[in-house]
Amino acid sequence: MKKENTKNPDYKERVIESFAKQKFMRFIKAELTEIKPGYCEISLPFSDNLTQQHGFFHAGIISTIADNAAGYAAFSLMEPTSSILTVEYKINLVSPAIGERLISKAEVIKSGKTLTICQSKVYACEKENQKLCAIAQVTLIELVNTNDG
Amino acid sequence: MKKENTKNPDYKERVIESFAKQKFMRFIKAELTEIKPGYCEISLPFSDNLTQQHGFFHAGIISTIADNAAGYAAFSLMEPTSSILTVEYKINLVSPAIGERLISKAEVIKSGKTLTICQSKVYACEKENQKLCAIAQVTLIELVNTNDG
Amino acid sequence: MKKENTKNPDYKERVIESFAKQKFMRFIKAELTEIKPGYCEISLPFSDNLTQQHGFFHAGIISTIADNAAGYAAFSLMEPTSSILTVEYKINLVSPAIGERLISKAEVIKSGKTLTICQSKVYACEKENQKLCAIAQVTLIELVNTNDG
Amino acid sequence: MKKENTKNPDYKERVIESFAKQKFMRFIKAELTEIKPGYCEISLPFSDNLTQQHGFFHAGIISTIADNAAGYAAFSLMEPTSSILTVEYKINLVSPAIGERLISKAEVIKSGKTLTICQSKVYACEKENQKLCAIAQVTLIELVNTNDG
Repeated sequence: MKKENTKNPDYKERVIESFAKQKFMRFIKAELTEIKPGYCEISLPFSDNLTQQHGFFHAGIISTIADNAAGYAAFSLMEPTSSILTVEYKINLVSPAIGERLISKAEVIKSGKTLTICQSKVYACEKENQKLCAIAQVTLIELVNTNDG
Repeated sequence: MKKENTKNPDYKERVIESFAKQKFMRFIKAELTEIKPGYCEISLPFSDNLTQQHGFFHAGIISTIADNAAGYAAFSLMEPTSSILTVEYKINLVSPAIGERLISKAEVIKSGKTLTICQSKVYACEKENQKLCAIAQVTLIELVNTNDG
Repeated sequence: MKKENTKNPDYKERVIESFAKQKFMRFIKAELTEIKPGYCEISLPFSDNLTQQHGFFHAGIISTIADNAAGYAAFSLMEPTSSILTVEYKINLVSPAIGERLISKAEVIKSGKTLTICQSKVYACEKENQKLCAIAQVTLIELVNTNDG
Repeated sequence: MKKENTKNPDYKERVIESFAKQKFMRFIKAELTEIKPGYCEISLPFSDNLTQQHGFFHAGIISTIADNAAGYAAFSLMEPTSSILTVEYKINLVSPAIGERLISKAEVIKSGKTLTICQSKVYACEKENQKLCAIAQVTLIELVNTNDG
């Protein structure tokens, strides 16, 4: 992974603060487990509440943490006075999301003037084993001089 | 919208039953509000638990009901002995999801032998007003002779 | 289709001129057949040169005119001093592209301040018959005060 | 990159033969420059015929070789009696495609029973310099007991 330069020396505090404001993240008990310039990890323990009809993690949950990790990977590079929005994403669900935990890992592919492109991979984890269950490409837009919530 | 032919005369019961098995749908209080051959609507009342940092519906929630409505639009046409999986989808978030309710409306674009392509639109609703907030293209796969949960 | 307002009274001339500058369009013999505010059609006669291994239109060709029609549908609404770029798109190839002609029809779904979202449908045509062979969702960005080529 | 197992010991001949049948590849002068199990590279010299209005490689051309490299990366793993189709793809165009040559590099992310997911990156090359200009996620389907053209 290439080294990214952030425009915000306090990017870590900013991401942690923004993540804490997302009530949906609290509701599903997602945790921000790593944040570096251009990189973010989110972890989510299994719960019956998050399942689809086969008892696996719901695709909506997988997408949620894929998109969210991408958002904060991008946000970590942005001006302290900017806000961020997801423009769009595409996700392939490549294997069933079975396990005691999901982890999404997102990195910035291209950081442009207005738009940032990220890739997210989501892994289903059981003990030491991590299996790729989804991969996403995400486009985000920087809104300059806009409050983040 | 073109009229679709279903291979399952009991498609309605089957979709209702499958939806009821998705614990995540119950957790977020989503309701299946319409099901016809090749068409599905899901409705979701606003709750603080479902918000992102600005207090709007979270993108993960919008995606969840976009994907789920597409899944049941496709599932409504399938053999009674088949199960269904989302292969992938792409979603554009076109305006902020602010309102007392989200409604996703999905229809089948192409029903093939193995794969079905759907389009979902998600609307943010405030009283009589419905505003498009997201549009998705979803690819689903029919798993023949497989239990749906 | 909803009526769109253009910021450029001379949108038609502008699109025709821009299309003419795309040498690749001339190379494959694509024709701009209709342009209205927020809507564009491109037509492409069959040629052996445009085929894949089964003798059908190549997916790259289908994508080319899907993306291009979307681009001009969006461009038709923009300021006369703006240029346009495709940010990304997603395309589903839903049936084999067999026929004497392809036609792509694109319309604007959402025209935002910076980004425009379009949908393109591509039809394989044989005499009076038009069959949907691809559907795409396209995100485009307006570059203000930038020359279009 | 992980090592992939192919079901076809003669995968190389098969891919070369299939590529040669694509008349559109010949028309644009694309070359198959590398094929390994689960990996494919395609190279394309610049030509005026392949340009958009700014004189850069046309997005349709970039997509063509991104999709095609993904197709052959997937095809290289498949049964000798199978054919392959692109189901869908999503591509982000991350920087202008300026240079004397484009190279697309595709690898298999997940090879499933019916579907294969690939990632393609397209680079604009000028002398020794390679710059990422597009990234795509591609879904392909194996058609068993079907002739490849």
